[in-house]
Amino acid sequence: MKTDDKGKNNIDFSQGLQCPIPKSDYDRVLLAHGGGGTLSHQLISKMFFSHFDNELLNEQHDSAIFNIEKGRLAFTTDSYVVQPIFFPGGDIGELAVNGTVNDLTAAGAHPLYISVGFIIEEGFLIEELWQIVQSIKRTADRAGVKIVTGDTKVVDKGKGDKIFINTSGIGKIKEGISISPKRCKPGDKIIINGKIAEHGITIMSAREGLEFDSPVKSDTAPMNKLFEQIEKFGNDIHVMRDPTRGGIASALNEIAETAGVGIFIEEEKIPISGEVDAACEILGLDPLYIANEGKMLFIVSPEIADEVLSIIRNDALGKDAEIIGTVTDEDPGTVIMKTSIGSSRVVDMISGEQLPRIC
Amino acid sequence: MKTDDKGKNNIDFSQGLQCPIPKSDYDRVLLAHGGGGTLSHQLISKMFFSHFDNELLNEQHDSAIFNIEKGRLAFTTDSYVVQPIFFPGGDIGELAVNGTVNDLTAAGAHPLYISVGFIIEEGFLIEELWQIVQSIKRTADRAGVKIVTGDTKVVDKGKGDKIFINTSGIGKIKEGISISPKRCKPGDKIIINGKIAEHGITIMSAREGLEFDSPVKSDTAPMNKLFEQIEKFGNDIHVMRDPTRGGIASALNEIAETAGVGIFIEEEKIPISGEVDAACEILGLDPLYIANEGKMLFIVSPEIADEVLSIIRNDALGKDAEIIGTVTDEDPGTVIMKTSIGSSRVVDMISGEQLPRIC
Repeated sequence: MKTDDKGKNNIDFSQGLQCPIPKSDYDRVLLAHGGGGTLSHQLISKMFFSHFDNELLNEQHDSAIFNIEKGRLAFTTDSYVVQPIFFPGGDIGELAVNGTVNDLTAAGAHPLYISVGFIIEEGFLIEELWQIVQSIKRTADRAGVKIVTGDTKVVDKGKGDKIFINTSGIGKIKEGISISPKRCKPGDKIIINGKIAEHGITIMSAREGLEFDSPVKSDTAPMNKLFEQIEKFGNDIHVMRDPTRGGIASALNEIAETAGVGIFIEEEKIPISGEVDAACEILGLDPLYIANEGKMLFIVSPEIADEVLSIIRNDALGKDAEIIGTVTDEDPGTVIMKTSIGSSRVVDMISGEQLPRIC
Repeated sequence: MKTDDKGKNNIDFSQGLQCPIPKSDYDRVLLAHGGGGTLSHQLISKMFFSHFDNELLNEQHDSAIFNIEKGRLAFTTDSYVVQPIFFPGGDIGELAVNGTVNDLTAAGAHPLYISVGFIIEEGFLIEELWQIVQSIKRTADRAGVKIVTGDTKVVDKGKGDKIFINTSGIGKIKEGISISPKRCKPGDKIIINGKIAEHGITIMSAREGLEFDSPVKSDTAPMNKLFEQIEKFGNDIHVMRDPTRGGIASALNEIAETAGVGIFIEEEKIPISGEVDAACEILGLDPLYIANEGKMLFIVSPEIADEVLSIIRNDALGKDAEIIGTVTDEDPGTVIMKTSIGSSRVVDMISGEQLPRIC
């Protein structure tokens, strides 16, 4: 969705600014770029400080320092090891920023500050690193967050896989907001902002070399602006959850278990594109278990569900939103799905690894 | 120093609690342990939640949520890729907690909350992971910080190197504290809390199989309790810096450059053990450039220098503390050392990677 708006393919290096580290100097990352000496400083100042540029980062402390008002903060961390690092609809940098923004959003917080920790394999192309740095900056700007502190380590060739990125983030929770799986109540409605399984299927297709008539793209996108639009419902928003690894099945199972409620969903209501559905058939995968990176499950009081749905649908990131189910007091801890042929089945937590290194 | 107090060898698996994941289940980490399904949950709940146990983590949100008073916060991140992961005096887990605690301390902050992100190579021994988790917990308790949020990713065998750990941290800065390299003034005294180069030489010796009469051990230790004891001097503490990668030479060069001051140090005053000095000779390394993980450079007003020194020396982590130099208005941006034979030399920033994967 997001990539359609952007109309830009991240893999095209001809776009974007010129790499601030002249190719003639180094075209690949050396161990010394992570060693704390002159080359580290060159990489950090030319590529990171100059591009992420903001008043907190510019202090060049090991820590970012900022003022905060009394209140509640959310703090989260995620490492990204997705393979391939560039894929239709995004790249590891975009994923890393959106993922942490979305984790903060799922806590009911406004994301403020993000840290970026790179673990780079020796020999990684400087040009690709630069592409990722630009992507991080663009994504942070889109979400309205600042990259305020960072770290770069380089590991020997064969001891990593191009690049891993950790992002941690801090967000502020407004008064009146209380998001927790424990707040699920029977009767609550479950809303998703669009089509499922797009990120996971994009990555799997890229790895398997699958091609489709209309290309499948990762849905990676920041969810915070969507939340801002419904935040006024305050206490009536009970749970938010970004269904990443393990898909909506795992997310809903976790919620059902934590809250001690049943969850009933309707297959027919779950948005999915024809291409993704077809790809799932070919790959033998169940889309309920496939990672999303630009989706949020909103569990809200029944009284506000229709209005929330209509607000979400008005946003480009929510145009395919649907109410996909209801919280019940039957079968606590269990997710039941009414299938499109009218039968019911239990949607379990998966036990194994369906899709390794999807994010 | 620290390890002497503890009298415990982290490599000895017979110590500590029994691994909560029965060996009969899995004795190595599988890709599925990072897949977001049942095995991920088992790992996270049995090993991480049960051991790190605190009220914030126990909420089992993707984000930790906490209340904070109005004021200044510090936020920092670091990834740890040290090799070997177990070494005399510590392990990667202890290093990861102390490193982030020390970065926060160097900003003048009281470390409060730490996140832990694991990137584990498929096939890593569960028993070793458990050892590291215990070490993280023990180190966090020692420093008085809480592990409040985390993430686990598993990468395919041959695409990582056992385990990488990212820690990010949040700390609170009290009023009246203002730590910044820019606050360096000519006349300021430079104090270090003990012997240099121990961590780096330990790692290099472990890799090279060097042995010494009295064993060299990493100095990894949290510096926050040391800072708490001198915090009362407030505004007269100008700069703190933990001289990790690149050693005290790089740290002092960075400060001299940022502050636009000269720095004059005396070789004779710099504490170093005979073993480390000898190892540096054998390995052809300059101890000024070797990483420390339990040291802090304190740059303070000359009026308080002697009192600060005496307070630091009263702590087990500061018993070998010395005033090693002075900030000057000569040669701005340059570090000059008076050598033990009485001559002077410029201590440059190193350009290359002296010691890869030292932290």
